[in-house]
Amino acid sequence: MNIDLNSDVGESFGAYSLGADAELFTLITSANIACGFHAGDPLVMNRTVALAQANGVAVGAHPGYPDLVGFGRRAMDATEAEVENFVLYQIGALSAFTRAHGVALRHVKAHGALYNVAAQDPKIARAIARGIARFDLNLIMVGLANSLLIDAAREIGLRAAREGFCDRAYNADGSLRSRREPGAVHASAARAAAQARQLARDHAVTTYEGQTIALEVDTLCLHGDTPHAVEFARAIRAALQDAGIEIRPMMM
Amino acid sequence: MNIDLNSDVGESFGAYSLGADAELFTLITSANIACGFHAGDPLVMNRTVALAQANGVAVGAHPGYPDLVGFGRRAMDATEAEVENFVLYQIGALSAFTRAHGVALRHVKAHGALYNVAAQDPKIARAIARGIARFDLNLIMVGLANSLLIDAAREIGLRAAREGFCDRAYNADGSLRSRREPGAVHASAARAAAQARQLARDHAVTTYEGQTIALEVDTLCLHGDTPHAVEFARAIRAALQDAGIEIRPMMM
Amino acid sequence: MNIDLNSDVGESFGAYSLGADAELFTLITSANIACGFHAGDPLVMNRTVALAQANGVAVGAHPGYPDLVGFGRRAMDATEAEVENFVLYQIGALSAFTRAHGVALRHVKAHGALYNVAAQDPKIARAIARGIARFDLNLIMVGLANSLLIDAAREIGLRAAREGFCDRAYNADGSLRSRREPGAVHASAARAAAQARQLARDHAVTTYEGQTIALEVDTLCLHGDTPHAVEFARAIRAALQDAGIEIRPMMM
Amino acid sequence: MNIDLNSDVGESFGAYSLGADAELFTLITSANIACGFHAGDPLVMNRTVALAQANGVAVGAHPGYPDLVGFGRRAMDATEAEVENFVLYQIGALSAFTRAHGVALRHVKAHGALYNVAAQDPKIARAIARGIARFDLNLIMVGLANSLLIDAAREIGLRAAREGFCDRAYNADGSLRSRREPGAVHASAARAAAQARQLARDHAVTTYEGQTIALEVDTLCLHGDTPHAVEFARAIRAALQDAGIEIRPMMM
Repeated sequence: MNIDLNSDVGESFGAYSLGADAELFTLITSANIACGFHAGDPLVMNRTVALAQANGVAVGAHPGYPDLVGFGRRAMDATEAEVENFVLYQIGALSAFTRAHGVALRHVKAHGALYNVAAQDPKIARAIARGIARFDLNLIMVGLANSLLIDAAREIGLRAAREGFCDRAYNADGSLRSRREPGAVHASAARAAAQARQLARDHAVTTYEGQTIALEVDTLCLHGDTPHAVEFARAIRAALQDAGIEIRPMMM
Repeated sequence: MNIDLNSDVGESFGAYSLGADAELFTLITSANIACGFHAGDPLVMNRTVALAQANGVAVGAHPGYPDLVGFGRRAMDATEAEVENFVLYQIGALSAFTRAHGVALRHVKAHGALYNVAAQDPKIARAIARGIARFDLNLIMVGLANSLLIDAAREIGLRAAREGFCDRAYNADGSLRSRREPGAVHASAARAAAQARQLARDHAVTTYEGQTIALEVDTLCLHGDTPHAVEFARAIRAALQDAGIEIRPMMM
Repeated sequence: MNIDLNSDVGESFGAYSLGADAELFTLITSANIACGFHAGDPLVMNRTVALAQANGVAVGAHPGYPDLVGFGRRAMDATEAEVENFVLYQIGALSAFTRAHGVALRHVKAHGALYNVAAQDPKIARAIARGIARFDLNLIMVGLANSLLIDAAREIGLRAAREGFCDRAYNADGSLRSRREPGAVHASAARAAAQARQLARDHAVTTYEGQTIALEVDTLCLHGDTPHAVEFARAIRAALQDAGIEIRPMMM
Repeated sequence: MNIDLNSDVGESFGAYSLGADAELFTLITSANIACGFHAGDPLVMNRTVALAQANGVAVGAHPGYPDLVGFGRRAMDATEAEVENFVLYQIGALSAFTRAHGVALRHVKAHGALYNVAAQDPKIARAIARGIARFDLNLIMVGLANSLLIDAAREIGLRAAREGFCDRAYNADGSLRSRREPGAVHASAARAAAQARQLARDHAVTTYEGQTIALEVDTLCLHGDTPHAVEFARAIRAALQDAGIEIRPMMM
């Protein structure tokens, strides 16, 4: 049994610091590095790839909408061609730094609103997949387990990594409970750790309503920009290790 | 005898069109494609690489300062680390499109103020060279003939392409006459064509003061955003062909 | 009988020119000036306000989404607070130039996707109205005739200018025929001119299906960025003048 | 005896937080609010003006170069017309929020590299002064005491507020010791507080070399983005109050 722990990192920008990257890098196995559209800049990207390398963490691109002031969290009515080429551009930009540091680029995970829109819109999911595939068919496309992102990846011939969330409540159909509803986010690290263990060991999750459903995941998302990010990450990691689950980069 | 003709292309942005790319592509042998910092966007880059491929034109990256409203024409007091990583980022971004189209990325030419600053500041010239070398030591670095850009390229182990200008007056020391002085720019296509032929055939140029000095160049710059860009390009191309000079991509 | 002719102007940006402002300013009575979010920059705004003043054209702000590469044409899932403050910021920015030139700021017309989203979403329409009202309750809010923009303006106590389109086909309910449908845009200047006359003189329009419906408008939009913008504007102006309709700024 | 305490605030941006505004607002009498070019965004500006109002702090605009990733700290070779209109635009943008909140806009202080460039370049200093004067001749222009900023303000008819620094070492000619030199910045809050008292009470400062020179200042700058910002601000405020110096907005 094994699982990957991924986190969004490299989201600082110029004089602005965000996240607890230095500590997170000691806890995760895959890093989704911002590429300058929703966050990140060339110096931050250079530093973050170096940090990933120093910590032996697998590197992925984390492309988002071109919306810095909105941090990529606002859905934009971008065309498929725009999304495809936005993704391609950002992967290329990050690949310059992985290449410069002699590090492999292993995966791509869309950010924020782009991820959420694509999980429900097959055209946008396919546009992301095309952007990735045009760069390199060997890249892994990360997407919400059971969502259209996974379908789009497989359809185009990319390996798909199914992502699960430790600190989010699930609905009976395997989708995430909306953040607008109460109880959408688990407030306790222990609860998140238990859900991580259940996902990784039992390939299942107990939903908000209390039933246990099957859910296969390849990677678990650790949030990096919440106040208790590091505490949660430590609790999750410990719970997985206690359960004898190997923590290693996705599909390695 | 042979010479390369290069031009800055792909400088449109979103709804804004600039330059006469479609016509220029039938006249040049090397394209310097904007990378989104001073001009260009992912859709424009995708389209421009496709256009270069369709016309058999060699592709290069054209990185600039991150200054869209200033079109990269304003010197910025950026650090060496900033310049190095700006250049690396932009090369990577463009390389995603060359890779997607199956086209080779052959050269890098800094844009506008970045080119001008680096021609006179060895630290910035070397920062550009490092950005290029970190991506790929096989790339050609284009720089003003006799300038610090050429020295920086060679120092780091990159091939350097020495650039000459057809429509600019030269000083006795081989530098360009400042645009603030009268007579800095040749207004007639015939004059530019004659200077192109002289540079390519005789490895020499007649200066503003009237002496003829030796000047070795590998590539000639055709301006793309002036009202008579296409007329000048045609006259230059015809003059070179009449003189039996082969027009082909630099160092091929 | 009188009518206002408005057009979007000042949409150039840095080195990029757009539109035929110099000619349009001789044909229109109200100018919607871009404020730097979707187009325009401080130099362009300064120049455009001066041009409006020189031509005796009434000045309005033309705020859009913060999306330069998309020219404000992509809907963004911005919150009401974001829209309200985006609008307020942009009005303020333009007002600095009207103040510096001693020109009155008379109206505000949302741009592109912001206009279209607000025409159908009461929350966004009200957010725009609040942004305007917080700056100055004497400003006129321009919106699509019969749309939620007009309701939102009146609700908050702003004067509303109902906008009609000369070159767009109308549906039976007074809405615009979608651009995705054939026949959405009138290709001939004569047709646009006839519709302008009908709207201004008869307070009516003949729909795509051929019925004539009542439609009260205070201002007609002249597109400025189409290839035939000036030709259309001249034809429309001539038709209105022939019909004895006075062309003057809205609500003056 | 009285003195003003000013600080740069409102420098957060989108998801990025910067500075300790909430605490600083209880300690200062004048706020320099970022206007969206080097930092700040419409929501942050709205919030910051409200915070100033709630704390009875005088409000000023803090315009910078259009360089978000560089936080306005890099000199840019902008023309006088660019600087003038950049400043005018930013003042206007902020004035929308002061107007909406019913707060007076009292002063303008250029940010970072723009302030530093203008302190030594009379053309840029005058361009800033023109930008301010075109908006409102009643605004106070804040500039480094004894610098060209003060001359430019007076020349054009603006009131000039001479700024002093509590935590920076001075040279014998009244200029600031360069940050590249050792001892340029006072590391202790007590030292900064003593210098504040000396400037406010004695109209003098003891230089790096140890002489005491006359220096008239109207306002003291409290840095807001350093780790000990609040501690320094408290110490300075306490020292001034102990010395019986009234702390109140400049020129009120």
